[in-house]
Amino acid sequence: MTHRGQSAPFRWEGVEVRAYKETGETFRDVTRQELTGAEHGQGTSLRYFEVGPGGHTTLERHEHTHVVIPIRGRGGALIVDRVVPLAPHDIVFVPSWGWHQFRAADDEPFGFLCAVVIDRDRPVLPTESDLAQLRRNPEIAEFIRS
Amino acid sequence: MTHRGQSAPFRWEGVEVRAYKETGETFRDVTRQELTGAEHGQGTSLRYFEVGPGGHTTLERHEHTHVVIPIRGRGGALIVDRVVPLAPHDIVFVPSWGWHQFRAADDEPFGFLCAVVIDRDRPVLPTESDLAQLRRNPEIAEFIRS
Repeated sequence: MTHRGQSAPFRWEGVEVRAYKETGETFRDVTRQELTGAEHGQGTSLRYFEVGPGGHTTLERHEHTHVVIPIRGRGGALIVDRVVPLAPHDIVFVPSWGWHQFRAADDEPFGFLCAVVIDRDRPVLPTESDLAQLRRNPEIAEFIRS
Repeated sequence: MTHRGQSAPFRWEGVEVRAYKETGETFRDVTRQELTGAEHGQGTSLRYFEVGPGGHTTLERHEHTHVVIPIRGRGGALIVDRVVPLAPHDIVFVPSWGWHQFRAADDEPFGFLCAVVIDRDRPVLPTESDLAQLRRNPEIAEFIRS
């Protein structure tokens, strides 16, 4: 496979639109598509996540890093210790063990590419103590509301 | 650095717009921007290349692979043994030792993201024999015209 075209905007030939995670109530209205994987030999996987209007991904952290590039709509993210607005083609780097969460604007879907290493650890959720620490920043407290 | 915004469309804060290659006459009207590198720990680098209207990259091959995602304009590519039209958000995979060249449409710039491993070999140019072999396919012969 050397060329994966699009069957519709933000949908790719031969790529299934899947649930963001199997179970849980830590996210809202998120889909996942796996665009590339082990076949290209770079040790990384490129995924496309799409968050529906008003939706959000899980607030989590892990040892592995993310490189994120929005390509659809507008949204924002908590990255480590601050909230940033995001627009298409911004570059976001989530460092090792940095807290992160992505949210769509209320009136449009927000889609982004996300690169990770294939051999990676599982995400960790915040404890009540972690949440209390994060909420000391009023901007973060507002952003991570459920 | 956790967020790299844009100073203008397809230009990023703190990223220099550089020459595609130092020297040579194997390409026309191409710029390069290095968006990410070793700092994210994934072993890969993400670059943005932009080809001016009617321009093209070098026809070359190498052991390392490319994952390419157009994000601006329209163009086409020779990938291994065929020519494919390209539009934003298509996914292109250039396999190890596959010939490849990218061209912009005549009337607009063509820009694409390209991921590579950081520790990689240098590109190899085609010999006259390689070119004769590629030109057996009329569509490729037309595409790789200088």
